[in-house]
Amino acid sequence: MTSEPQTGKPQTSERQPAPSQLQRTLSRDLPAHEGQTVKLQGFLHARRDLGGVQFLVLRDRAGVVQCVGSGLELPLPESSVEVVGRVAAHPKAPGGYEVHLQSLRVVTAAVEPSPVELPKLDWHVNPETLLDYRVVTVRGLKERAALKVQAELVAAFRDHLIHEGFTEISTPKIVSAGAEGGANLFPIDYFGQPAYLAQSPQLYKQIMVGVFERVFEVAPVYRAEEHATSRHLNEYLSLDVELGFIESEEDVMDLETRVLAAIMARLAERAQPELALLGAALPEVPAHIPRIPLLEARQLVQEKYGHAVHGKDLDPEAERLLSGHYAEAHGSDFVFVTKYPRAARPFYAHPELNADGSADAELTRGFDLLFRGIEITSGGQRIHDHAMLLESIAAYRLNPEALAGYTEVFKYGMPPHGGFAIGAERLTAKLLGISNVRYARAFPRDRHRLTP
Amino acid sequence: MTSEPQTGKPQTSERQPAPSQLQRTLSRDLPAHEGQTVKLQGFLHARRDLGGVQFLVLRDRAGVVQCVGSGLELPLPESSVEVVGRVAAHPKAPGGYEVHLQSLRVVTAAVEPSPVELPKLDWHVNPETLLDYRVVTVRGLKERAALKVQAELVAAFRDHLIHEGFTEISTPKIVSAGAEGGANLFPIDYFGQPAYLAQSPQLYKQIMVGVFERVFEVAPVYRAEEHATSRHLNEYLSLDVELGFIESEEDVMDLETRVLAAIMARLAERAQPELALLGAALPEVPAHIPRIPLLEARQLVQEKYGHAVHGKDLDPEAERLLSGHYAEAHGSDFVFVTKYPRAARPFYAHPELNADGSADAELTRGFDLLFRGIEITSGGQRIHDHAMLLESIAAYRLNPEALAGYTEVFKYGMPPHGGFAIGAERLTAKLLGISNVRYARAFPRDRHRLTP
Repeated sequence: MTSEPQTGKPQTSERQPAPSQLQRTLSRDLPAHEGQTVKLQGFLHARRDLGGVQFLVLRDRAGVVQCVGSGLELPLPESSVEVVGRVAAHPKAPGGYEVHLQSLRVVTAAVEPSPVELPKLDWHVNPETLLDYRVVTVRGLKERAALKVQAELVAAFRDHLIHEGFTEISTPKIVSAGAEGGANLFPIDYFGQPAYLAQSPQLYKQIMVGVFERVFEVAPVYRAEEHATSRHLNEYLSLDVELGFIESEEDVMDLETRVLAAIMARLAERAQPELALLGAALPEVPAHIPRIPLLEARQLVQEKYGHAVHGKDLDPEAERLLSGHYAEAHGSDFVFVTKYPRAARPFYAHPELNADGSADAELTRGFDLLFRGIEITSGGQRIHDHAMLLESIAAYRLNPEALAGYTEVFKYGMPPHGGFAIGAERLTAKLLGISNVRYARAFPRDRHRLTP
Repeated sequence: MTSEPQTGKPQTSERQPAPSQLQRTLSRDLPAHEGQTVKLQGFLHARRDLGGVQFLVLRDRAGVVQCVGSGLELPLPESSVEVVGRVAAHPKAPGGYEVHLQSLRVVTAAVEPSPVELPKLDWHVNPETLLDYRVVTVRGLKERAALKVQAELVAAFRDHLIHEGFTEISTPKIVSAGAEGGANLFPIDYFGQPAYLAQSPQLYKQIMVGVFERVFEVAPVYRAEEHATSRHLNEYLSLDVELGFIESEEDVMDLETRVLAAIMARLAERAQPELALLGAALPEVPAHIPRIPLLEARQLVQEKYGHAVHGKDLDPEAERLLSGHYAEAHGSDFVFVTKYPRAARPFYAHPELNADGSADAELTRGFDLLFRGIEITSGGQRIHDHAMLLESIAAYRLNPEALAGYTEVFKYGMPPHGGFAIGAERLTAKLLGISNVRYARAFPRDRHRLTP
């Protein structure tokens, strides 16, 4: 279905190729083609007819273009189309240019109207409906902007670590036991043997410190938690790091600071249109992110805000208050909460050392990183000494037999090491002001959602 | 435990920092420090005593260094250590330099001898034993070289695709049904609902063509096949690609050719030491990899080698013979086998089109890529037309209700698209001449192996 040229005849005097021979132009490249005839491909994002003048919005992978025509036979929105037309400056059009259409060819016609009108889509629609129709709603401009930002974020994470001599690893997601203990695991039938989906690559990344010293992994992890909060997913993309020959967890926090700075630098360079669309402002990453021991943090929140923290960790309200304090008093969107007590950390967390070099009975070298009111990372130094690890397992009243697979590698000279993990979706959501982490994942899995 | 300086006194006339203040030097950087005192950290890879002269091999993330000392108290191999000494040229030492030790500090002592002597490790030891002790054997120089090559290969895959405008995606590995049908799926208990581990991101990458047009994913996939061959894994790293607005599967093969060229270029640039250690020669990637329709390939193998192929696909012997023919007659380590019959392809494979534009009843636009005798990739154009997809589902006698989640997105103008997937471990193994694909994965999962 090719319609006749309607607006702006082909300028033969310009000796341009015939439309059928034109190379495809992307929406973002229009400024370089002002006055020329171009061919565009993409999806019919929106269409309007104003008294015989047709306004189309074409969406391609690089952005959107306003197209103007008349008398065209238009397919349903979301049809994929190819258009040919002349590029003209137009200050009110998105990007400052529009295309005066000569022809429109339907590549593949949509056979049903989209269940949600994508141009009207916003974060405010009923979230369950948006997720039910995710195969289409994920095409929405804000939805894809969030996923694009995440892709850039992940690329920056990897590139920076490779630059610092890290090696990427790929570790099993089918495991015989959980790294953090037995709770919250999804069971798998592995050829009749019981197995589980991995909660974390914790053990494996530690083993690989013995191979490459510095390793990272970007892979899904699984938490069979029955929560239905705005900050949890049952399957999420974990950005995992582990490095050997460290002095203490300070080295790990320094590394994470550099990684975050690299992420923000890449987003500033490559994701400006997406950030602008989402109204998101990138944080400054201080050269030294403030660090406060957990016990002092609890005291601060109690004294400054009158918020008493119960339990071993900070509660979500305490995280918000503490973050608010650092934003206000120190101008930092980030704060490391350090020296977590053992009661709030797993058995492999390295104890804090006393002045005489002995292990502290209460505190660890574990930390969390808060960003704009929410924990986006857990990390710390790990126990590398075999005897200390066995003692810790006993102190935690865990079964050493069940952990024999874990403790095995510590017989072989593991150097002091530590690491951290960032939940990609949670960081993306918080960066972009997306209130529910499920929209920072293409196809989220939650307590009730296994499809699409 | 610091031993006294033994060989080569500190050269105070050079005004070098005291050993405790030295920055760490990596093994590969020794040439720049000839005659200087350096500090190295790593694992004690090997140790020998020849008439009072101690030869140590230190292994760090960048390579190995021969160190010479005397009278040092040496810990067990695999202990992590820090040494200080003077760099001297020595033609017979690995890398052409050795370090004359002044001191050795044990960072973490190994508490047991390694169950397998890493310097003597080779591919020939009983593979099950090597895998049983994988937490240590993965430190072997060849083992880690294979994984390092894989990391570079994966990085090249991603970087090239990003360069061509692709966006990285992360799709669910917990699914309600299999993309290829119901067979060979690992069942999961998902909060009491039946679910499965994804065999492939096939559907999801197709959906995401509607969002980004060009997408890729690097993630594990799962096949519950009870095979115990040298070429299969139950969990492997799949390098997945999908792109829209193609003319035919030729565009997909062209893209894969460029991706392979980028991979080999990066390996040539960044993995020479690993390739040399493994005695591996990189293939040339022809600008146009030869392409032969499956039916002609079967005929060629029959006529030239007298090998009759039974079944719908090429058997492993036919793959070897066909690859051999192309290596010999065309100088190419690669060959695309094209136009697979429908009987050998899933329902979503796009049919070949006849001259009049109608769908061919027998052939598809699916292809495999053979590399040095083995299939390393499957790909093709997919059906994008909703009506054609429903017809195909009927022709394959599949249940359209069960596939409703799959067909949904095809109502919304999916452009012509196709893609491919490369098994990272299989490509790595074949590149490096590793006979069993399990050694191209850090912690392989097979029929009987759930640990480590």
